Amino acid sequence: MAIVLGPNQYGKAEVRVVAVDRSTPRHTLVDLNVSSALRGDFSAAHLTGDNAHVLTTDAQKNTVFAFARDGVASPEAFALRLATHFAGSYPWISGARVAVESYGWDRIAVGGAPHDHAFRRAGGEVRTAVVTADDGELHVVAGLADLVVLKTTGSEFWGFPRDAYTTLAETRDRILATAVTARWRYVGTDLDWHGTYDTVRTTLLEAFASTHSLALQQTLHAMGAAVLETVPEVAEVRLSMPNKHHFLQDLSAFGLDNPDVVYHADDRPYGLIEGTVLRDDVPSAEVAWQGTPGFV
Amino acid sequence: MAIVLGPNQYGKAEVRVVAVDRSTPRHTLVDLNVSSALRGDFSAAHLTGDNAHVLTTDAQKNTVFAFARDGVASPEAFALRLATHFAGSYPWISGARVAVESYGWDRIAVGGAPHDHAFRRAGGEVRTAVVTADDGELHVVAGLADLVVLKTTGSEFWGFPRDAYTTLAETRDRILATAVTARWRYVGTDLDWHGTYDTVRTTLLEAFASTHSLALQQTLHAMGAAVLETVPEVAEVRLSMPNKHHFLQDLSAFGLDNPDVVYHADDRPYGLIEGTVLRDDVPSAEVAWQGTPGFV
Amino acid sequence: MAIVLGPNQYGKAEVRVVAVDRSTPRHTLVDLNVSSALRGDFSAAHLTGDNAHVLTTDAQKNTVFAFARDGVASPEAFALRLATHFAGSYPWISGARVAVESYGWDRIAVGGAPHDHAFRRAGGEVRTAVVTADDGELHVVAGLADLVVLKTTGSEFWGFPRDAYTTLAETRDRILATAVTARWRYVGTDLDWHGTYDTVRTTLLEAFASTHSLALQQTLHAMGAAVLETVPEVAEVRLSMPNKHHFLQDLSAFGLDNPDVVYHADDRPYGLIEGTVLRDDVPSAEVAWQGTPGFV
Amino acid sequence: MAIVLGPNQYGKAEVRVVAVDRSTPRHTLVDLNVSSALRGDFSAAHLTGDNAHVLTTDAQKNTVFAFARDGVASPEAFALRLATHFAGSYPWISGARVAVESYGWDRIAVGGAPHDHAFRRAGGEVRTAVVTADDGELHVVAGLADLVVLKTTGSEFWGFPRDAYTTLAETRDRILATAVTARWRYVGTDLDWHGTYDTVRTTLLEAFASTHSLALQQTLHAMGAAVLETVPEVAEVRLSMPNKHHFLQDLSAFGLDNPDVVYHADDRPYGLIEGTVLRDDVPSAEVAWQGTPGFV
Repeated sequence: MAIVLGPNQYGKAEVRVVAVDRSTPRHTLVDLNVSSALRGDFSAAHLTGDNAHVLTTDAQKNTVFAFARDGVASPEAFALRLATHFAGSYPWISGARVAVESYGWDRIAVGGAPHDHAFRRAGGEVRTAVVTADDGELHVVAGLADLVVLKTTGSEFWGFPRDAYTTLAETRDRILATAVTARWRYVGTDLDWHGTYDTVRTTLLEAFASTHSLALQQTLHAMGAAVLETVPEVAEVRLSMPNKHHFLQDLSAFGLDNPDVVYHADDRPYGLIEGTVLRDDVPSAEVAWQGTPGFV
Repeated sequence: MAIVLGPNQYGKAEVRVVAVDRSTPRHTLVDLNVSSALRGDFSAAHLTGDNAHVLTTDAQKNTVFAFARDGVASPEAFALRLATHFAGSYPWISGARVAVESYGWDRIAVGGAPHDHAFRRAGGEVRTAVVTADDGELHVVAGLADLVVLKTTGSEFWGFPRDAYTTLAETRDRILATAVTARWRYVGTDLDWHGTYDTVRTTLLEAFASTHSLALQQTLHAMGAAVLETVPEVAEVRLSMPNKHHFLQDLSAFGLDNPDVVYHADDRPYGLIEGTVLRDDVPSAEVAWQGTPGFV
Repeated sequence: MAIVLGPNQYGKAEVRVVAVDRSTPRHTLVDLNVSSALRGDFSAAHLTGDNAHVLTTDAQKNTVFAFARDGVASPEAFALRLATHFAGSYPWISGARVAVESYGWDRIAVGGAPHDHAFRRAGGEVRTAVVTADDGELHVVAGLADLVVLKTTGSEFWGFPRDAYTTLAETRDRILATAVTARWRYVGTDLDWHGTYDTVRTTLLEAFASTHSLALQQTLHAMGAAVLETVPEVAEVRLSMPNKHHFLQDLSAFGLDNPDVVYHADDRPYGLIEGTVLRDDVPSAEVAWQGTPGFV
Repeated sequence: MAIVLGPNQYGKAEVRVVAVDRSTPRHTLVDLNVSSALRGDFSAAHLTGDNAHVLTTDAQKNTVFAFARDGVASPEAFALRLATHFAGSYPWISGARVAVESYGWDRIAVGGAPHDHAFRRAGGEVRTAVVTADDGELHVVAGLADLVVLKTTGSEFWGFPRDAYTTLAETRDRILATAVTARWRYVGTDLDWHGTYDTVRTTLLEAFASTHSLALQQTLHAMGAAVLETVPEVAEVRLSMPNKHHFLQDLSAFGLDNPDVVYHADDRPYGLIEGTVLRDDVPSAEVAWQGTPGFV
């Protein structure tokens, strides 16, 4: 028996870079959180503390800032450039993973007109992109996190098996609420990143709204399938959707009925539904998902 | 010398009530986090554990849910109703504070049309309302929290004194970013709560955008003053505005200039600017602010 | 009517300074989060953006680091030194508030012996100190936050009034759990800060454990009174104690009893009990508490 | 081409169960956060909303509470019991993953003696256990999260390559700080869970303290290897260790030297080192790690 080093990676996490384009009076703004990780032969650092192979995480950070000097066209394009650079920087580096979170900013309206250089941070979901360079191949996984959605009707839940621990009543009408985290893998590395992202996001929202839901699993599948049907460049979609329970409050002790009016939004525990929807004719690429949390 | 009981209050914090109006096919939704606190003579509970005066926090929670059965017109109106009820519930209760956070929901668009019963949680700021009932008087403090705004130009900072620990360079052009927490006290308890809130919010945003800033203090004051000028029902405005530093990144080591393009958004430490702007002809009402954190 | 500037302050929040004493092989470590705020005449900055009175927040940060070079004897002593310095730095500065959070570190044991220079961050409560310099006077408020404690018995709750919204059952035995935030004001500015802090902390814990509780208010009062009885230098104690509900789970649907064995720890809503215990022969000092959140 | 359902799972997350043993006057307490997920054939729920195969997440929650009635010997034993139960509950369920977080409580000392029924929540790390039942096999991965440790000396970093973006200076003496998340896979399902956990935790701490570090990778490897050398039942160790940077503050502008005394503890970005140390003669078991975030 021997004790050996297994899979490993290292990098700089959460570089908060903001890039401003002031080339015209109508400024634009990109607000990113960039994390890089390198893979390759780093055995010596682990075994003897010899850092000859360790491109420092400080240099990785510097690279993010330096590359932003040329502008950030999109999270995906920026991550592709960084991952390609890192993976090719030294012979002992076989791969890189670059993950980007992108925060949206809307123009503040003044007198009804969008301002040239004043912005309000858009709330809601965070746009994500993960690019993995691996032995010469590039994989792009785009996504969004924490898109919180809710339906006040159009959701049922019944027909489930009843074991010895099942006490839940069936329902033909409930609130359905979730915080969507979706990630989708593209085939190809040269897409219209913004346009495709917008299409996927709209498709997810419309599918959530339009699906009469008999199970959150059904809604999840409908959302993923709609993306695949709408966007041919998407090979697979992985969704993680907590069931954010809204319990109808019993008001009978106070002489009140409650015909689906007053709910308690509960924190914990919550259901958690996770699933993948994919095309059966596209090769899988597990390396594209390596190190991405929260998925089966 | 004696050891005595000083000021005290107790209540139920963070009741998460969601109220749905399904009276027409076009549903509406109110999503609140309600905290109540009672003031009065609770000495016996403190000194001997005699709870004869303690209207339970569980009953306070029940009251929130029961009152929501009648609908929630606005955070302010709901808090007024609750505070009036609690303060009048027993003779030994002299006052109540009801604080509400309200989370916005936008309709999901399907095929371009807003959906009847599917919603997306609006990100961005939280709307707040604090109503204090005190010896027969009612005070309303409305507000918003975490409205994150940024200007890519139109902000300078110079002319400050230089003590032995001052190393900061002066600047004629910097990014100015902050997360506005604003609270404003109304005179009167019967206003157009939604309309007035929208006006204040718009006024704050426009003043932030339009003020050429020589100091974050100046921007803060301009925002508060604009509210007072625009909305006669507002007696005072209290603002807390962290200076979310964006540092221009030095790229010279990589042979690059950086003409206000690449910034590092830093987490800590941050400046924190807090101030009050008020009318000099309206009586003060410190009790309206008691228990509200984060203000001078 | 005129619009005027009211109370205001500004400063640098959350300077994370770590000071190491390596003067002997047995190193020691102080880990602080320091926030300063200045009060005085800053009208010009607010009204016209004239910063001639604005000792920059950057300089305040620098001062924290520079003063740490001499060592940090205790949070209270360090805050006293900083507040005195800031309040005296320019004639237009009338006061300063310096708030310190202190994080504990324990030595790692190796082979049973405490290591000279390897530490593990102690979990649990954060030690706090707030020093306010105001027109030549100094006030010290020490404290702790998030000391989470629980009793599995020795807590009752009954005898409360039953209004129309009261449904809670009385109980003679329940779990009592809370996260104590306590702050106490000292008379004097030259105490044994570490020793006194330790005494107060021990007194709070022992009072919580030893009090047979008929109400969380009673426990709160007992804790504050015990501190005042034990430590003559403490003038008043302010406590904020959420009632972290542990609900006995009904297992009867599964043919099981539940004799105080299985509980559900709930998140929200929670009770929140806040109160002050004080000596009646010590002058009050409200300025010492100004800007400290979370107390009545 | 067809759109198909890929890997999926669902369950109840974050059931907060507290189990008290009051069988003797000296009570004991177990405080857990339990998440379960089921795997198997849930196609119908996804494709048509037919829930005949969906053992409800509500029932999973009920099971956690019901099983706790018999006592919780250890996180590992409790998770084994639950995972076995869930995986065997219906023929279409092929596997289950049960993840447990365990929070420690220490007895409060009163007059120097540990109290029988009053406790203080231990801060610091969270103990974790993940049991995966998969096609009749059981896998146990124990762990701990957020064990924050620091060395004031005994850490160097030099000898790294210098690419065009490397500006970092070499150092022969720096603060090394990290928050250890460690997970280790056991061979066997019938161990002394508490004793083994304590041994692993002690081993990790001692290895961190004792290793003169030339790289955080070296420390990580030393920690993992020490566990494997000490505990024969451990097959592999996965470690995720952020490099919590402490930057020496430059005080020269104030006429001060800084001989490794004053540091700034920075938040973001941070290095992130992740790695696996394992025995080369134990079969791998990737399914044991499926759904566990944060590892390469």
